Amino acid sequence: MFKRILIANRGEIAVRVFRACRELDIEPVVVYSEADREALHVQLAEHSYCIGPASSAQSYLNTDAILTVAKAAHCDAIHPGYGFLSENAEFADECEKNGITWIGPSGDVIRMMGNKAAARELMKDAGVPVVPGSDGSVADAAEAKRIADEIGYPVLIKAAAGGGGRGMRKVFDPDQFEDLFEEARAESRACFNDDEMYLEKLVLNPHHIEFQIMADSCGNVVQLGERDCSIQRRGQKMIEETPSRVLTPELRERMGEAAVKAARAAGYVNAGTIEFVLDPSGEFYFIEMNTRIQVEHPITECVTGIDLVREQLRVASGLSLSFTQDDINLRGHAIECRINAEDPAHGFMPSPGLVDFVHLPGGYGVRVDTGLYAGCELPPYYDSLAAKLIVWAPTRLEAIRRMRRCLEEFVIDGPKTNIDVLHQIMYHPGFIRATYNTSFIDENLDTLLAWTNAADVQEEA
Amino acid sequence: MFKRILIANRGEIAVRVFRACRELDIEPVVVYSEADREALHVQLAEHSYCIGPASSAQSYLNTDAILTVAKAAHCDAIHPGYGFLSENAEFADECEKNGITWIGPSGDVIRMMGNKAAARELMKDAGVPVVPGSDGSVADAAEAKRIADEIGYPVLIKAAAGGGGRGMRKVFDPDQFEDLFEEARAESRACFNDDEMYLEKLVLNPHHIEFQIMADSCGNVVQLGERDCSIQRRGQKMIEETPSRVLTPELRERMGEAAVKAARAAGYVNAGTIEFVLDPSGEFYFIEMNTRIQVEHPITECVTGIDLVREQLRVASGLSLSFTQDDINLRGHAIECRINAEDPAHGFMPSPGLVDFVHLPGGYGVRVDTGLYAGCELPPYYDSLAAKLIVWAPTRLEAIRRMRRCLEEFVIDGPKTNIDVLHQIMYHPGFIRATYNTSFIDENLDTLLAWTNAADVQEEA
Repeated sequence: MFKRILIANRGEIAVRVFRACRELDIEPVVVYSEADREALHVQLAEHSYCIGPASSAQSYLNTDAILTVAKAAHCDAIHPGYGFLSENAEFADECEKNGITWIGPSGDVIRMMGNKAAARELMKDAGVPVVPGSDGSVADAAEAKRIADEIGYPVLIKAAAGGGGRGMRKVFDPDQFEDLFEEARAESRACFNDDEMYLEKLVLNPHHIEFQIMADSCGNVVQLGERDCSIQRRGQKMIEETPSRVLTPELRERMGEAAVKAARAAGYVNAGTIEFVLDPSGEFYFIEMNTRIQVEHPITECVTGIDLVREQLRVASGLSLSFTQDDINLRGHAIECRINAEDPAHGFMPSPGLVDFVHLPGGYGVRVDTGLYAGCELPPYYDSLAAKLIVWAPTRLEAIRRMRRCLEEFVIDGPKTNIDVLHQIMYHPGFIRATYNTSFIDENLDTLLAWTNAADVQEEA
Repeated sequence: MFKRILIANRGEIAVRVFRACRELDIEPVVVYSEADREALHVQLAEHSYCIGPASSAQSYLNTDAILTVAKAAHCDAIHPGYGFLSENAEFADECEKNGITWIGPSGDVIRMMGNKAAARELMKDAGVPVVPGSDGSVADAAEAKRIADEIGYPVLIKAAAGGGGRGMRKVFDPDQFEDLFEEARAESRACFNDDEMYLEKLVLNPHHIEFQIMADSCGNVVQLGERDCSIQRRGQKMIEETPSRVLTPELRERMGEAAVKAARAAGYVNAGTIEFVLDPSGEFYFIEMNTRIQVEHPITECVTGIDLVREQLRVASGLSLSFTQDDINLRGHAIECRINAEDPAHGFMPSPGLVDFVHLPGGYGVRVDTGLYAGCELPPYYDSLAAKLIVWAPTRLEAIRRMRRCLEEFVIDGPKTNIDVLHQIMYHPGFIRATYNTSFIDENLDTLLAWTNAADVQEEA
């Protein structure tokens, strides 16, 4: 097992990985930007190093500084968390070249799955269903248009290097195809310095269903059930739950098998996520693989009883998985709400700043993963995730009721948050009946905000 | 189901019951003493009533004030928590007479099990093993001495109304018997206004093993496994764990069956605990039944997945248990540490006062039940329990490592606490190998304190 692991991240995930290290008697070494001097992960750690100014580019994305610290502090491995360097294939290679274990799949696998067009082809060849579309990337707008006319509208134009909704355009009207194609390509050039584009048929009102997989270097691949992440705003997940109410046991088994097949085809090792869209008729299609631990991994931990970050460390050190597919018995229901420091009344604008007071909900079946503490500062330089509130209960309805109770109990004084919106969703018939899909927020945001504002007014009265 | 429940308690258990109510859409009504105006349970509640001055006798034991509030606030039930009025048979009767459901067993059952000598006789008749001793209570010191000579020394003199170690004396030397008997009787008169005494053979170096049971009014009685509560200081539990490492599956089954038999013999309804001593040879004996929810109930919740307080409310409302004996599958291992505001360096003297800052550990497999928040005041009038730290993991060793990590992470600025002592216990070979019994703290306290002080010195250096 490793002696010292450098945690190349910040916020709640840095704390999460820190805890997993401590519980395995591994010394965690943390890094921080100048804006994060007082952050919880720094306060908890015995070994911490400042790696640069507030800007991500100069700190959490500063590969030179991070490698220098890793070597100086005698770390034998690096955990990248999610975001930042977690899907940077060159950095993964660089670590290995320096004799430092990268806790994640190899640079080659990251690279392959990072090119969405190539990953799509790989999956198609392996017999994993993919959305009808182009075979790999397209040469230009004209070729793309020809394929679009063939597969039929609406279609989705996607950047091979894309992510987070950037470099992506939906096309409903063939006349607009070329303009939107050029727009998406320009965005991809600007965001990812890459102009490789591909096409997919647009699945309307789908569910976003992803499968957690874990694979070791001995050839074992296990799937740990699905997460329904369909409650999203502008491609950003807000709420995740497992199991999904739209999967029958038979469909769950088929999708799980496809997820294992996908991971095997990629030669995958470590924790990964296979994302599918599930259309209203019950057909599912691979869309991409995330080659890192996900924000929403705790709900899978709740229903499986397996500590995924611990397992990441085991696998990266060369050990085999501590469980087999037969050991995976999903128990109960788990929901995660992402508590963001943002102002729903003003377009969900980030709302960083001093947290004067915080009360985290607790008790039976409740877990809060966060870097928050009374008196901490939420810097404006990074994403707005302030806490992950995860509940578990024997049944979905009990989990919803527990989530309501926890959202009522949660207090963050200072920054604005989306807590009230999340709370309203827990009372929305579409959520309670699980009839929602990825259009839920778009279709209901006005109602949710009106309810939230009414609650504000009531409280002021 | 109930509409409104009055919670006749304070601290973490008031918060615990509050949460269970909210999750069942029941309105919790809380009460507080003048010293608890700013307490967490009051801050969380929409309906709260001051019931008197700081002194327990005038507030949390003030049955008139509590009944008056219950009626005025239209409560249909009262949850007494533990301590205070929870084993007050007259108050249970009084509630029922006033048409308010008592969330616990009937006054008659509390009364019967409250007389330890009578409970002992009942169990003996029902075929539940009891420690050899007197048949019920004894008339005087002379009769007691005769029985002691018969069963052999050492013996234990106990007050029928006793509890918390009061009215109890160990006798190793027959010559001291009469003096110690009179001492114990005087103490019982002073503490419990009762001088009924009985005798038991003293089991040396036993384990304290208790079984959680739940019973409904339809005749269902289920046992939810054991808790090993042998880590005690002066009869006060410090650490509890489940499952116990000293029980074989066969012994667990026999003890579980005895616990169910005991509950049936008592005609028990609601949550209760059957306490046994287990002698080093593997013989077990009933010692008493606690007719309330216990402080250490969360570890049972962790391994069974059953919410015991929720179940208490269901059963009290006339519903049947939501599970059967076959549904009880113990999963993994759970440990609870009681974090007390007390000063280990000065005889564990209570250390109340202002909590300037608090950081609760969190993450996977961690639960903290507490009324603590940054800026709260721990009043000197009540017990010193500040928080219950509960961890769960698939194996005992992982649970111990998680507990260490959590104790390291726990910050309470202001009052002194026993956190360092608990932390040292998690590194003690006797705890790690589970070779401890109820003598563990007495035998190891000096070492544990020396270690703790060394850590202090190190930190100062």
